[in-house]
Amino acid sequence: MATFSLEDINTMHHLYRINLINSCSGYKSANLIGTIDELGTSNVAVFSSVTHLGSNPGLLGFFLRPTTVIRNTYDNIKTTGQYTLNHIHLDILEDAHHTSAKYDASVSEFDVTDLEEEYKDDFSAPFVKGCPVQMAMEYVEEYPIKANNTILLIGKITKLYVPDDLLEKDGFINLSKGKVATINGLDGYAVPELKTRLDYQRPKTVLEKLND
Amino acid sequence: MATFSLEDINTMHHLYRINLINSCSGYKSANLIGTIDELGTSNVAVFSSVTHLGSNPGLLGFFLRPTTVIRNTYDNIKTTGQYTLNHIHLDILEDAHHTSAKYDASVSEFDVTDLEEEYKDDFSAPFVKGCPVQMAMEYVEEYPIKANNTILLIGKITKLYVPDDLLEKDGFINLSKGKVATINGLDGYAVPELKTRLDYQRPKTVLEKLND
Repeated sequence: MATFSLEDINTMHHLYRINLINSCSGYKSANLIGTIDELGTSNVAVFSSVTHLGSNPGLLGFFLRPTTVIRNTYDNIKTTGQYTLNHIHLDILEDAHHTSAKYDASVSEFDVTDLEEEYKDDFSAPFVKGCPVQMAMEYVEEYPIKANNTILLIGKITKLYVPDDLLEKDGFINLSKGKVATINGLDGYAVPELKTRLDYQRPKTVLEKLND
Repeated sequence: MATFSLEDINTMHHLYRINLINSCSGYKSANLIGTIDELGTSNVAVFSSVTHLGSNPGLLGFFLRPTTVIRNTYDNIKTTGQYTLNHIHLDILEDAHHTSAKYDASVSEFDVTDLEEEYKDDFSAPFVKGCPVQMAMEYVEEYPIKANNTILLIGKITKLYVPDDLLEKDGFINLSKGKVATINGLDGYAVPELKTRLDYQRPKTVLEKLND
């Protein structure tokens, strides 16, 4: 068993730390965030921190560092109030990952990859064509995180597109049918197969505990 | 293609909405949070919102609703300042999922499941024995989220335990070697196989673009 103390974490090589700490939260969501600036230059960037906040209203959050490439995404969202979320899937892993490269704001990642932009229903921000889940998002609010100078940005789902064959009767989106990816650490990708859906859980009765 | 507008989302059956919106952020991390109260009653509960915030310091956040079963977790963290994060893996899926049942604070989920508590290195909160990644966490700060009355709770990793065979030379934790689970929606579980690790990305040169 490898054990890392706080001092070990603080003093290890920074590349080792980036890999270690990025892997240790568990599997991450794999999304492409699409935005557009005032001049009409589109932008698309990979994010692994998109997280469910609540269903009613449908709110999702993600974290960003304002001093990196992600700045384009943040600036565009602040300017337009709109962005899209698009699930990364098996067929676009390499191109999706490439959007982590630090391009100037004047370059659209759609022009330097095979990712295709798609505009729908008068929404200003570009969707990524072919992604198994696509969402139109509206900026709601943000929280500057004091502990490490990141920003939590929260948005509301205003439109959701899902292929019929991924959608089950009770509203469950079967991500594995869409070959949706998940991220391990900074650079590891997996495409999971759904194993099981488990029932809604209630406390066990005394009898159930005895028979357990 | 199924399309859901904001009005569709607002007016659909609440169970359908819970399944739909919980599935649409992508795959989620699958963690058990271990805590203990002042009377010595331990608590363990499944969370799917644990998210990486930064590597230096090693910070992780998660969202909770103060009005649900999760209240035990929150109260215990606020009282003791400590909690553990433990990755859910193939062998404990059912018991881990069962911790979502709403037990009274006087009941330890360790007593009503086969999950075993483990105490290490003078840390007050219980770890879940056998989990492939275990972390001792210290409370840092919290943010009340206005948009839906949830709380973002942020903690610092003060100790990290990983089996040697999951740890690669560069610090990457190979989650699939530990049969770590990921969550789809509220109740879907998958145990992914790592497909690939991709290189650090830099902008393409003009030549690379032409040959692409």
